[in-house]
Amino acid sequence: MEHLIAVAGGSGTRMGGGTPKQFLLLNGKPVLLHTLEKFYAYNPKVNIVLALPEAEIETWKQIVKNHTITIPHAFVKGGQSRSQSVRNALNVLGDSGLVAIHDGVRPLVSIETITRCFEEARKTGAAIPVMPLTDSLRRYTGTGSVAEDRAKFCAVQTPQVFDVALLKKAYEKAGSKDFTDDAAVVEAAGHRVSPVDGNVENIKITAPFDVKVAEVVMNL
Amino acid sequence: MEHLIAVAGGSGTRMGGGTPKQFLLLNGKPVLLHTLEKFYAYNPKVNIVLALPEAEIETWKQIVKNHTITIPHAFVKGGQSRSQSVRNALNVLGDSGLVAIHDGVRPLVSIETITRCFEEARKTGAAIPVMPLTDSLRRYTGTGSVAEDRAKFCAVQTPQVFDVALLKKAYEKAGSKDFTDDAAVVEAAGHRVSPVDGNVENIKITAPFDVKVAEVVMNL
Repeated sequence: MEHLIAVAGGSGTRMGGGTPKQFLLLNGKPVLLHTLEKFYAYNPKVNIVLALPEAEIETWKQIVKNHTITIPHAFVKGGQSRSQSVRNALNVLGDSGLVAIHDGVRPLVSIETITRCFEEARKTGAAIPVMPLTDSLRRYTGTGSVAEDRAKFCAVQTPQVFDVALLKKAYEKAGSKDFTDDAAVVEAAGHRVSPVDGNVENIKITAPFDVKVAEVVMNL
Repeated sequence: MEHLIAVAGGSGTRMGGGTPKQFLLLNGKPVLLHTLEKFYAYNPKVNIVLALPEAEIETWKQIVKNHTITIPHAFVKGGQSRSQSVRNALNVLGDSGLVAIHDGVRPLVSIETITRCFEEARKTGAAIPVMPLTDSLRRYTGTGSVAEDRAKFCAVQTPQVFDVALLKKAYEKAGSKDFTDDAAVVEAAGHRVSPVDGNVENIKITAPFDVKVAEVVMNL
């Protein structure tokens, strides 16, 4: 059994208000719909749960109607934080199989990336897509900043894929603490996370610039 | 006096051979020409020095002819490493004024970013454009990787702008050691580097995907 938790909790403040990022249109279709279509193309039997801000559930229902979306999916209310949204969605899943946690605003994830993550998680229990850094990296020290060797770091994308039972236990252990991503939750619980290659186009749609980029990539 | 050292030393292996990245056409013009035009628009009196791989100097001369480039500039041979290319270019500059070190393959730098860097460097001696990280960050540990808090880090773009005398002294102190960027060289010499805002479009052209993105941004 393969599950997808699509986290679409952002309020879209960086877009200058108005339409939340996950509902912006790319080639005439909402970002979040593109995202669901990718996972549906990977596996039409994937069990999809959306975590949506309560205020946007009605909007989503309207979108489902207007775009005649037929991809089966459930949804839960998003929480105050990303971690809380994931917790709410995990609560409605059974305890078996693998679950991909994916940013709803990453519609450009490739089928290959999704496949690599599921395959690796099937072997190791926890897999994440990573990419090398292209810019130099600095660390803030409190009083200033210092150069870091970017070769010693990587950028982490989603989907992050886990054995469901493992992820549930890790979130229980984490209590109410917030984490930067699900890999960090699993790691804090003492389990190793396996990196696999992501894909360079797999950006987050967080600014008008990203919408333009995404449209180009989709039309390639 | 304001100087620009445009570092265009890459051999373009990531583009699958053929045309070096800095000579790829964006809207019919080589990437490197777009880059020079940005700095020329910022200040038509900027003193431009290109660091080019020896094997590409003839190609560049041909490009200058074909595109009837009238922006005044000098060029020097690039070195084995980025640091060596910067050293070669610094050798042909006087000791006064400010110098911007910029990646030749970042044609989407904004005039505002260039201005902010020069203004801050005029006050502090050393300024670099930075951006928050959008992906989660992990650090390789040798045996695996661990999550890092991305809020404690930033990505560094170019131009990195310095007091010329300060940068020259820092490179002397650095000896033949290679550094990730010029800010690291200055810092290793004991001088603080001031961060200012970069611009999100200011990407490096390192893959065919980036060429497409750059064309979109230029046509916005």
